[in-house]
Amino acid sequence: DRQRVISEGSLDHARAWMDKVGWTGNFMIGAATGPAEHRGREFADSEVYKLIEAMSWETGRNNDPARKREIDELVALIGGAQEKDGYLNTAYGRPGQAPRWSDLEWGHELYCAGHLLQAAVADTRVHGPGPLLEIARRTADHICETFGADGSTGICGHPEIEPALVELYRVTGERRYLEQARLFVERRGHQTLAPHQFGWSYFSDDIPVRAATVLRGHAVRALYLACGVVDVAVETGDDELLTAVKNQFDRTLARRTYLTGGMGSRHMDEAFSDDFVLPSDRAYSESCASVAAVMLAWRLLLATGDARYADVIERILYNVVATAIEDDGRAFFYAHSLHQRTPTRALPDDEEQLGFGGGPRAPWFEVSCCLPNVSRLLASLSTYLAVADDEGLRIMQYADATVDTRLADGRRVALETTTAYPHDGDVTIRITATDGGEWPLTLRVPAWADGATVTVGGVPEPVTGTLTLRRAFAAGDEIRLHLPMAPRFTSPDPRIDAVRGCVAVERGPVVYCAESPVGEPLGDLDLLRVDPGRAPADGDEGVEVWGGLAAATDATWPYDEPVGDDPPLGLIRLLPYHRWARRGPATMRVWLPTVQSPRARSTDG
Amino acid sequence: DRQRVISEGSLDHARAWMDKVGWTGNFMIGAATGPAEHRGREFADSEVYKLIEAMSWETGRNNDPARKREIDELVALIGGAQEKDGYLNTAYGRPGQAPRWSDLEWGHELYCAGHLLQAAVADTRVHGPGPLLEIARRTADHICETFGADGSTGICGHPEIEPALVELYRVTGERRYLEQARLFVERRGHQTLAPHQFGWSYFSDDIPVRAATVLRGHAVRALYLACGVVDVAVETGDDELLTAVKNQFDRTLARRTYLTGGMGSRHMDEAFSDDFVLPSDRAYSESCASVAAVMLAWRLLLATGDARYADVIERILYNVVATAIEDDGRAFFYAHSLHQRTPTRALPDDEEQLGFGGGPRAPWFEVSCCLPNVSRLLASLSTYLAVADDEGLRIMQYADATVDTRLADGRRVALETTTAYPHDGDVTIRITATDGGEWPLTLRVPAWADGATVTVGGVPEPVTGTLTLRRAFAAGDEIRLHLPMAPRFTSPDPRIDAVRGCVAVERGPVVYCAESPVGEPLGDLDLLRVDPGRAPADGDEGVEVWGGLAAATDATWPYDEPVGDDPPLGLIRLLPYHRWARRGPATMRVWLPTVQSPRARSTDG
Repeated sequence: DRQRVISEGSLDHARAWMDKVGWTGNFMIGAATGPAEHRGREFADSEVYKLIEAMSWETGRNNDPARKREIDELVALIGGAQEKDGYLNTAYGRPGQAPRWSDLEWGHELYCAGHLLQAAVADTRVHGPGPLLEIARRTADHICETFGADGSTGICGHPEIEPALVELYRVTGERRYLEQARLFVERRGHQTLAPHQFGWSYFSDDIPVRAATVLRGHAVRALYLACGVVDVAVETGDDELLTAVKNQFDRTLARRTYLTGGMGSRHMDEAFSDDFVLPSDRAYSESCASVAAVMLAWRLLLATGDARYADVIERILYNVVATAIEDDGRAFFYAHSLHQRTPTRALPDDEEQLGFGGGPRAPWFEVSCCLPNVSRLLASLSTYLAVADDEGLRIMQYADATVDTRLADGRRVALETTTAYPHDGDVTIRITATDGGEWPLTLRVPAWADGATVTVGGVPEPVTGTLTLRRAFAAGDEIRLHLPMAPRFTSPDPRIDAVRGCVAVERGPVVYCAESPVGEPLGDLDLLRVDPGRAPADGDEGVEVWGGLAAATDATWPYDEPVGDDPPLGLIRLLPYHRWARRGPATMRVWLPTVQSPRARSTDG
Repeated sequence: DRQRVISEGSLDHARAWMDKVGWTGNFMIGAATGPAEHRGREFADSEVYKLIEAMSWETGRNNDPARKREIDELVALIGGAQEKDGYLNTAYGRPGQAPRWSDLEWGHELYCAGHLLQAAVADTRVHGPGPLLEIARRTADHICETFGADGSTGICGHPEIEPALVELYRVTGERRYLEQARLFVERRGHQTLAPHQFGWSYFSDDIPVRAATVLRGHAVRALYLACGVVDVAVETGDDELLTAVKNQFDRTLARRTYLTGGMGSRHMDEAFSDDFVLPSDRAYSESCASVAAVMLAWRLLLATGDARYADVIERILYNVVATAIEDDGRAFFYAHSLHQRTPTRALPDDEEQLGFGGGPRAPWFEVSCCLPNVSRLLASLSTYLAVADDEGLRIMQYADATVDTRLADGRRVALETTTAYPHDGDVTIRITATDGGEWPLTLRVPAWADGATVTVGGVPEPVTGTLTLRRAFAAGDEIRLHLPMAPRFTSPDPRIDAVRGCVAVERGPVVYCAESPVGEPLGDLDLLRVDPGRAPADGDEGVEVWGGLAAATDATWPYDEPVGDDPPLGLIRLLPYHRWARRGPATMRVWLPTVQSPRARSTDG
């Protein structure tokens, strides 16, 4: 469904805007032909590459020949801008521009090259080797010559080249790409980038990768780097490196991640803050950080086999990625506030937005990485559903799907999953083909799914955590997984000051929120109080809780006596967080303050 | 005491740094003599002017001839940099520099000129008219010619020229300065400055001054503008304008101000956030915003006679201004966090700091407005103690002081206040001279002083709010004011999510905090829980509350079940917030989470 939106809306929308603001045009200037008038920010090239990556995955899904022609035309354009020695960036090195590699901190040259490589990898995986792969190889070779063991010891202010080089190595088998990625990873953390107001941590250049204990600084930078670190660790068999980055991500999940799975709580430097600093109203939770977090969780899922990372992917997909894009695919959130205090306001369709905070989904931003980035993720979503392991098959995400693949030993397996998940929690998996013999089928049971059951033929049996069924499955066999979908209250770690004294409501993997659209007011959400003693329940039009609006207590000075009485309570309707800001200007909050005297405490922790 | 620190430490320290980083040297280049190599930011001139203002007030207090010579030398330097037509700015207009007035949004030219005028006003008030006043008048005349009714309709991105022109009008009687200030005030709010990522509200250019309902955008900009608005309103008798700005400040106090009186809760744009967005850990609460807030509160106190504004001044002085400067006057806070989660770290004495957030007091910043700005406030502190009104005398702040003045009708009045305030709450006011006859003496009773008494000769009598004694005082008469200083718990407005479920402790006007220095650990302050059912009390070494450390509940995911049991409680020592970060690296918090089951709720609200 979301994929169709991307296909039918976002890709054309993004292409049209990139033409309008000149980002595709930058490539037309051609190499070394007079002073360039580069348009857009220094990383504009990368958005074109991300768009090509999204288009490639999308054509793999729907085989659209018109889209394939569009890709080919863009690739030709890009090839024309490549220098003879392989260098390719429209913002540097031409007459009138700053020299190549003269601003590693902010120039984004290696970052752009990384996205070029990723686009080439996607194009190659879908369509086989072609001109884009050649362009990417020439670029990668040039980078290896410039930044190799005997070359410059620099690193890029914005990581991205690291995972890209490993991905290109996987597609081409060229080990120097892997070695170059390894060099970039080991060089980081030695404070070689120029100091800046935001500190070296902004670039993850404060502490060597092996010594760091948590992700920090600019969230997208830190997460892309971590992806590259996992890639290097896995491909070189470096367990120490893998453990380091796994521990960093685990602590980030435990202490620096929003309930939605969103990451980054500072607007100023788009950064992770200290542990437990997770304000709802000033949440940053950038769309691109979520794309990067899915990429990282996916890598750690594959590297460790721990299904907890699939829980993380699910949480981010349903609560950040699904929230980011307008229903028509033509407007999007850059940042994801969990608490909108003043009503969002309508934005004109044809204006580039300068700011990233609050507000409704916008058609385009001066820095418009989210749309192509989310598009490339959504277009490749199907790859996250299932994974073949050493012996069998693991189903990691639940959606209507067919899987037809071969096990590690070459036996063919095909199955079909049917479900209305996450609307309800019943998933039916029907084996449609098998070459016979025993093999293990692993099903993820999310951590929140207390009371899950599985039925294989006979009686439902309780399951917790990952479930592995090892059988000689036959075509027609059905496995029915039941995940309880009753809405539930969730309490925050008490060290998160920002949401102390509040509860959130979740239903399956979906986070809910209270929304108060202007005109049909629930009222001032800052005065909403809910009773955590009465469980939330499915109502006719969404999840309902017991709550009410406290009396406003306006005073000339807001610090004085404790608060007054609890308000009278009634049923309050909540909606999925990913559905907010789709009904016009509204206020919203995910974390709901509780009444002082709940009906009965639901404490069991 | 603080004034002595400024005099003996800060002024020399600031001068030495301004020489070192080239800000004073900028003036040596001389007008129109070849390409300038301007050093520092575009507003560096203003820091030199603020320093001269501070030095001027300081010489008025201590009559230091060496300091007076230093001022004269700086003035001569500045005079040499003034252009023939009166224009004076070292960063614009010379060969190799951007043209004059070419960047009203960010150039700070009118802002710098405003601080020049303020320095001249201080110099003139203390030493009488001299060369600096002449420089200032030529500058002001040039501005009136350039931006007058027939000139450019521009405004400055950073307000400051507005109050400065009115102050210069007051010193010189030149009405065109007042008229120019009025023009600048009326022109603002019509979105004439170029759009920016932060929006027009950043410049207070989003809504006309008369229509706005609250201060918004960049805090210092908004507060300086408001000062100018009050000045214009008072001098032109414009009650509508006065009411507008009074209402804006009142709502700002009720909804956008920290317990300390600090203002501005966003790092990104150094701005006010939405109502009730007041995070402790990411508080910005810039030193300069507090200087500006004192200036504004003082103007509204004079304009309205409402002693509430003197409460605000007292709160800011004891909890932000007193916090800003190191005991030796040679290091300072730019921003004032109310919650330091990770230990502050020692900083080298000789390094200019790039960032403004968290951390200990620093010797110097790339943007070092706080030190000269706080210095000019502290050096002029005595002006805030007492004020003559239409008939009598009002004592607004309590400190050891002598007042010797004339009432509006010309009668001489002298008095002496003796107090250890705010350590204790006894203030003795002794009339030392009077020309006889009845006159009113007004004493501020702070809003927090429940149970205050006054003794005039005989028995103590209870007082609330402002107290006016109208008598024929005689020399030797004593008035004894008693303000109860028992420490007390304060609760936040429940709409401030950031500190929900917490209490703060105040004692008189002083906000307290828990500090956990590294090495002598109270422990992890994020786990501290206090019992709001047992009142805080004065202990041997500070204020004590009942509290304890909750068990850490580390989990892989921080959102799950409600918190566990309350910790065992003991006495926890607190210290005044303005004393924090003076014992080496430490964590700190002002707002203290409460236990779930207090001994007895102290609710009476």
